[in-house]
Amino acid sequence: MMAKIPVSVLGATGTVGQKFLRLLAEHPWFEVAAVAASSASAGRRYGDVVRWRETAPLTERIAGLTIQPCVPPLVGPIVFSALDADVAGPIEQAFAAAGAYVVTNTRTHRMDADVPLLIPEANLDHLALVDRQHEARGWPGAILANPNCSTAALVLALAPLHRAFGIAKLFVSTMQAVSGAGYPGVASLDILGNVVPHIGGEEEKIEHESRKILGTLGPAGVEPAGFAVSAHTNRVATVDGHMATVSVGFGRRVTPGDALAALREFRGSPRVACLPSSPDPPVEVDLRADRPQPRLDLERGGGMAVTVGRVRPCPILDLRLVLLGHNTIRGAAGQAVQIAELLVAEGRVDRPA
Amino acid sequence: MMAKIPVSVLGATGTVGQKFLRLLAEHPWFEVAAVAASSASAGRRYGDVVRWRETAPLTERIAGLTIQPCVPPLVGPIVFSALDADVAGPIEQAFAAAGAYVVTNTRTHRMDADVPLLIPEANLDHLALVDRQHEARGWPGAILANPNCSTAALVLALAPLHRAFGIAKLFVSTMQAVSGAGYPGVASLDILGNVVPHIGGEEEKIEHESRKILGTLGPAGVEPAGFAVSAHTNRVATVDGHMATVSVGFGRRVTPGDALAALREFRGSPRVACLPSSPDPPVEVDLRADRPQPRLDLERGGGMAVTVGRVRPCPILDLRLVLLGHNTIRGAAGQAVQIAELLVAEGRVDRPA
Amino acid sequence: MMAKIPVSVLGATGTVGQKFLRLLAEHPWFEVAAVAASSASAGRRYGDVVRWRETAPLTERIAGLTIQPCVPPLVGPIVFSALDADVAGPIEQAFAAAGAYVVTNTRTHRMDADVPLLIPEANLDHLALVDRQHEARGWPGAILANPNCSTAALVLALAPLHRAFGIAKLFVSTMQAVSGAGYPGVASLDILGNVVPHIGGEEEKIEHESRKILGTLGPAGVEPAGFAVSAHTNRVATVDGHMATVSVGFGRRVTPGDALAALREFRGSPRVACLPSSPDPPVEVDLRADRPQPRLDLERGGGMAVTVGRVRPCPILDLRLVLLGHNTIRGAAGQAVQIAELLVAEGRVDRPA
Amino acid sequence: MMAKIPVSVLGATGTVGQKFLRLLAEHPWFEVAAVAASSASAGRRYGDVVRWRETAPLTERIAGLTIQPCVPPLVGPIVFSALDADVAGPIEQAFAAAGAYVVTNTRTHRMDADVPLLIPEANLDHLALVDRQHEARGWPGAILANPNCSTAALVLALAPLHRAFGIAKLFVSTMQAVSGAGYPGVASLDILGNVVPHIGGEEEKIEHESRKILGTLGPAGVEPAGFAVSAHTNRVATVDGHMATVSVGFGRRVTPGDALAALREFRGSPRVACLPSSPDPPVEVDLRADRPQPRLDLERGGGMAVTVGRVRPCPILDLRLVLLGHNTIRGAAGQAVQIAELLVAEGRVDRPA
Repeated sequence: MMAKIPVSVLGATGTVGQKFLRLLAEHPWFEVAAVAASSASAGRRYGDVVRWRETAPLTERIAGLTIQPCVPPLVGPIVFSALDADVAGPIEQAFAAAGAYVVTNTRTHRMDADVPLLIPEANLDHLALVDRQHEARGWPGAILANPNCSTAALVLALAPLHRAFGIAKLFVSTMQAVSGAGYPGVASLDILGNVVPHIGGEEEKIEHESRKILGTLGPAGVEPAGFAVSAHTNRVATVDGHMATVSVGFGRRVTPGDALAALREFRGSPRVACLPSSPDPPVEVDLRADRPQPRLDLERGGGMAVTVGRVRPCPILDLRLVLLGHNTIRGAAGQAVQIAELLVAEGRVDRPA
Repeated sequence: MMAKIPVSVLGATGTVGQKFLRLLAEHPWFEVAAVAASSASAGRRYGDVVRWRETAPLTERIAGLTIQPCVPPLVGPIVFSALDADVAGPIEQAFAAAGAYVVTNTRTHRMDADVPLLIPEANLDHLALVDRQHEARGWPGAILANPNCSTAALVLALAPLHRAFGIAKLFVSTMQAVSGAGYPGVASLDILGNVVPHIGGEEEKIEHESRKILGTLGPAGVEPAGFAVSAHTNRVATVDGHMATVSVGFGRRVTPGDALAALREFRGSPRVACLPSSPDPPVEVDLRADRPQPRLDLERGGGMAVTVGRVRPCPILDLRLVLLGHNTIRGAAGQAVQIAELLVAEGRVDRPA
Repeated sequence: MMAKIPVSVLGATGTVGQKFLRLLAEHPWFEVAAVAASSASAGRRYGDVVRWRETAPLTERIAGLTIQPCVPPLVGPIVFSALDADVAGPIEQAFAAAGAYVVTNTRTHRMDADVPLLIPEANLDHLALVDRQHEARGWPGAILANPNCSTAALVLALAPLHRAFGIAKLFVSTMQAVSGAGYPGVASLDILGNVVPHIGGEEEKIEHESRKILGTLGPAGVEPAGFAVSAHTNRVATVDGHMATVSVGFGRRVTPGDALAALREFRGSPRVACLPSSPDPPVEVDLRADRPQPRLDLERGGGMAVTVGRVRPCPILDLRLVLLGHNTIRGAAGQAVQIAELLVAEGRVDRPA
Repeated sequence: MMAKIPVSVLGATGTVGQKFLRLLAEHPWFEVAAVAASSASAGRRYGDVVRWRETAPLTERIAGLTIQPCVPPLVGPIVFSALDADVAGPIEQAFAAAGAYVVTNTRTHRMDADVPLLIPEANLDHLALVDRQHEARGWPGAILANPNCSTAALVLALAPLHRAFGIAKLFVSTMQAVSGAGYPGVASLDILGNVVPHIGGEEEKIEHESRKILGTLGPAGVEPAGFAVSAHTNRVATVDGHMATVSVGFGRRVTPGDALAALREFRGSPRVACLPSSPDPPVEVDLRADRPQPRLDLERGGGMAVTVGRVRPCPILDLRLVLLGHNTIRGAAGQAVQIAELLVAEGRVDRPA
């Protein structure tokens, strides 16, 4: 049995930090060696500080860790960041400068020209941006980012269609779960029996990040995909799982049959498909009339698969469809873990002897 | 004090039937004189049969009415129909043939060429179709229909924009309350913590009915409006209130400022604005970032106003916006009552001496 | 038409403060003349500061008020307090010392020996404690408190039984709405699809306050009622309305028939029943098998009545029953307004000429 | 690897039937060999008939089974019954008469004098009632029942206390999930933002079944435990998980410390603890102030453990506490599977060679 790679988690007490710890608890390659949080918590026992919200119990080993300050070095070559965006920037940079691969769920660096914004099944080649960071910034480490939660599900579902047909125009209207806002996040008085038709910054993230992820890596960095995106984002009374209704048009005529074939055949590169967190298939198609639904379909592929349903013609663009993704797994911690796995599989991080 | 006009309610025991009774309980012009339901209930005391779901208590007078069979004649010149679609057709026709004005919430006759599908603020002139029914069908009475619940809110909100600028293309993605499905309707296991991305027949209704309502009355009937509609309909865990995110394009360039001016200036005809159920204004604009919301904005205009928010540019068409309407008031019983008021105000139904 | 009595509201921006403003907006006797809040908000326009959460719109007049600091004097003889408990003590005392009648929803002074804790239908005579405040504290004004939200519903429902039969033992298990915790209050992640079996301090409040309210006013203050109370408090996913299941035993045998008679006959003193906010009757009995329910029964008596159902024998004590009260009306702002009305009706506050 | 024991499921298309199939899908000892349902479904492919509501996908093998009529014989020595109570009686008897061990979730036979009502950790010895069925009814097979869903959680949690101290009086107020009512079951209009304080027949089941389960097996059958039970049952807006607040008194004084020791030390017989479905421990104690909660604690012990929290003194009886159990696992299908495991472990059903 192979020794595991020690990893650290920044912002370990928040909801995304907890999700990292839960996903890493039984990971075949990684083992959490250090947890870090704000200076107010540093020095205290993790189990005494955290308000644990995962259904899987906190393990004794993790509960017993002493919280570290968010200052390099921490144990291990990989650092997962679940820091708040208002503090993440300099901390993540310091870790990269100190030699760590920082895989971050925070939005701060996502749109930086030399930071790969990765959904490995969709844009594996963008990983090469890491080399530019080494060169341009002189960092022995690097920063890699996973997308915004609703963007992750959307782009993974649409990647097969973009690859096959070339998206030209994209309407998306989301129905997003409260866990996307962290804890305490959305007040219950705001969402019980209610819909809130606004999530701050979310529409812009979807519009910008989707074009970067599906963009083309060139000598000057990523050339964003050229499609237009019109996003409407809404918060609904679900705990986990972001739904989106989508109308999409292409450079050429595409039928539902064409789209279904592309969706069903889609697999990531074998270099991605072999990763422990990669679902098979990454995009599940469910054509029952009332699917996907968060309560029934969210856990597919361990929360790493997206489910697409209701693929049908659109009276204005080419296609209408509905998609669902797990916002705290594929849309956050799970996506970051898969990116870290890719760093190992690609040889950028050494496995222990 | 004027004597009231006696009216009857078909399908009085269901949720829409109950809403009719609640709205009519203190109506200044109308008084419920008869309630009718399926033959299984006919002959029994209404209060003993109904499973009353309104928060306002059932009045003693209504509770004491004996349920009639759905056979003409019933008391009064106006009959409200909340019948199930599978039985409504011949019953409603029989009442019209017997001289009643049947204002129906049922879908059965909505798309009939000579049946007006009315949102009086939007298409008052379609009322003239009643004359064609008199002529073509030889009925002394007539059938008039209110639109599907999500269509009603959508079309009322968009009528000012269509009138001012001419809609060319329309995307709509709804988030609809469970009361739209009646009682027992949606199973709690299907909607608690969930979203169901499908409502049977709803997308087609939105697409067809919106074009009829905003169409042009000509010698051959209503010429449907020529715009394309792409609808996505979803059920969410709200009790009342249908939300819709909309992207809309026009025959010419329209800015948010243009649209806001049109929305704010919109009033129905004075012949409509003076009706007891007509809200003032019919379309409320609320530009706070996270509005409208069902919990906070549903009761505006007594449930007869729609609220429009987040009017902003669309990267693909001209405008994006969000709208909210009360599905069982403007989208059902309240709309029917307003249509009946119009029949009185226009002199098609006599007021008592 | 009589001139109205000017009143002020402390803590006017919070949820209870907003409920005061909503209830006072059309009050026949009172008019809000001043709103006060923390120093961070003082000097600003109310409409610019408040995150208004009531469904009835904020009036222009109130929105235009300049927020005052919570320092006496403010306009009018009556001051409603919705302050946080951690600051309320000295502020409320200062207003009483300056001559105001402070009617407070805050827990701080509720158990003070000379502060009346009032549900006027239940313990009108406790109002006399105000005189002891005048004497003992030398205040020209006084502090009067309304009970904790779940206690208010419980005690109003049980007052007829205590008066008639003398409660000896009382079990109560509550299911309380999230609005009881204010805003932002309960995090949606804590309550969506969940029950939280703990509300900090609530069980103690029920146990202590219920005995004070139903206690006997004597020369040494209120002698608490002698019954034993065992409370279990739970938060559930409702917006408004506290439910409680109750088992209660008396000093003598009491049948459901005895209890129903007492509940149905119960009226407050005519000196209370005539107040604008007093519901008639204060306790509604609904014996349908599945009632009361928050969604259907909460607004009875304008939110000032409690509804009692399922009155049946208890295999251990005498009776089992279920009760429902509106936690932010009878359980908070509405109760305080009724107490202020009582001050006017009893001549302790002068009506304007 | 041992061959598995073939089992059949009656009522396989309903929600409890589906839960049986899900729990049995990877069972180490059992394999579903036949599914049976009403004659309307018999002869059709299971996957074509069922409206599958489990989150784990329906396996291809099960989907491909042809639905059998509910008539003996079916494959295998064990038949699980999820039949509706209105048809279960003669069908279950026919299978027992034909030689099957029928483990039923249906209420029909639970209170029969010779039918064991089993929670194996609590009343293993009642299994001997099977012999009386063989004798008295002349059946080569037998009927064994699992308790009502709320009773199962309650009794498992209280069994350690009853065994140690002898319960004398028991108050229980439940907050039960909608899955307890099956599908479609509770209408969403009845439960969204609501509490329903009534579940038909549930209070009687709790009162009768708890005394039978904790009763004493004697020559004349089970002598019910002598304690008094006062139950209040409520439906709340949770999907899975029944909560109960409990006050309990004993024949002698019991402190929280006494109770905690008994709860923590409790283990079923080794003959039960070794079963595949038996959780270790069966009763989990969680003393965090706001636990247990359905969202966080329901899956403990694979849904077979109950969680007890807030053990504290009761002002009237001895103890107050809160408990949570999984209503469709420990409270239904999971409990039945464990009972079937016991039949195998005890040698009443042969293992395959």
